[in-house]
Amino acid sequence: MEKAVGEADKAGAEMILTKNQEVTDSARGQILNLLAERRSPYGFSMRRVEAEKLRRLFQAARWAPSSYNEQPWSFLVATRDNPEDYDRLLNTLVEFNRQWAGQAPVLALGVAKLAFDRDGRTNRHAWYDLGQAVADLTVQATAEGLSVHQMAGFDAEKARQEFQIPAGYEPVVVMAIGYPDDSEVSESGRPRSRKPLKEFVFGGSWGQTSTLVASDFAHEGGFDDQSN
Amino acid sequence: MEKAVGEADKAGAEMILTKNQEVTDSARGQILNLLAERRSPYGFSMRRVEAEKLRRLFQAARWAPSSYNEQPWSFLVATRDNPEDYDRLLNTLVEFNRQWAGQAPVLALGVAKLAFDRDGRTNRHAWYDLGQAVADLTVQATAEGLSVHQMAGFDAEKARQEFQIPAGYEPVVVMAIGYPDDSEVSESGRPRSRKPLKEFVFGGSWGQTSTLVASDFAHEGGFDDQSN
Repeated sequence: MEKAVGEADKAGAEMILTKNQEVTDSARGQILNLLAERRSPYGFSMRRVEAEKLRRLFQAARWAPSSYNEQPWSFLVATRDNPEDYDRLLNTLVEFNRQWAGQAPVLALGVAKLAFDRDGRTNRHAWYDLGQAVADLTVQATAEGLSVHQMAGFDAEKARQEFQIPAGYEPVVVMAIGYPDDSEVSESGRPRSRKPLKEFVFGGSWGQTSTLVASDFAHEGGFDDQSN
Repeated sequence: MEKAVGEADKAGAEMILTKNQEVTDSARGQILNLLAERRSPYGFSMRRVEAEKLRRLFQAARWAPSSYNEQPWSFLVATRDNPEDYDRLLNTLVEFNRQWAGQAPVLALGVAKLAFDRDGRTNRHAWYDLGQAVADLTVQATAEGLSVHQMAGFDAEKARQEFQIPAGYEPVVVMAIGYPDDSEVSESGRPRSRKPLKEFVFGGSWGQTSTLVASDFAHEGGFDDQSN
């Protein structure tokens, strides 16, 4: 399953051009540049990432909110300074991801702890909270001029074995981190695309567009891209 | 299970003072204020939240990354302008949360779609990606002067029934959103606390602190709080 997911990263990139509509920069301009300008590039510069910047990325993850403040996230980080560890993590990726991600100066594995520290019960928000931590890490990265490209396409069991990850902890995501290579013609240049708000912001009952967003276009021409 | 989780929100708040160490503002000052100053307050101002601000919150969620760009998130929003819908969502909360969250001018339910649109297979990152979207929503909220307090403590099945949420979609989180009530003596004033980096940033193998963070204290006194 992991492999299938990974191989379709490229298919996913194709899909955004057909399934959803493209948007203009002005549509994103309404929100923070830190969020609007984030990308998941396929091209990274070879430039080394400063250790203090990397620490700030993990500080950002650290301060994310979580259910019970359990902080169910851990990260395993590998930089090119340790080529052996780097290669072990790189080799958990599916073929397609291994090709492009091997350019990135930093790889990091995100791991979720599946049970609460406090009582051993299942923490149903473990993955959710890891997602929040990685999102905050990514916001900090953007502020530092770095890009983060997350991958579902890796072999979680291989990662578990390579890095002795115990039962009860689940490898969830591998991130490629680095300075984007702006000179490269890559997938990064594709327009980013998303569903319009009216398709996922509801009020009253499921599937009923919230009045908050239903009239976006009428009230604020150009605010959102609801043309298709 | 939901109820048990919810009722322990308060216990969770207590826990942060004993389990983890407190940190000073300077320790957080190394990362973006948007991340460092985020809080999950229990006290909200009655001030109405402007519709355009709410739309920007959902725009921020919209632009989050997701596996295959599936965007498996939906939100059901209720403001005090629609007291009936608001009360229906409020009443899905467990008793402890209902008490304080009923002050918030906006409640929003976050829902994850569990299967991929593209092929119907299980999307194991559905909750994770919803977490990312909510984290980005929260960053935008902080920039707007708003606070978001997330709750696991609600009855997901009651929410499903009240709002006709179909099978295959899972109610994951309820958010209270509004301007924080700074005048109130509340839980909000508690010091926030987190595990030190050395406990969750590993290198080489599981449990082995990454050299990136092992020497934080020596290199950058006061950078991190590793005093206990």
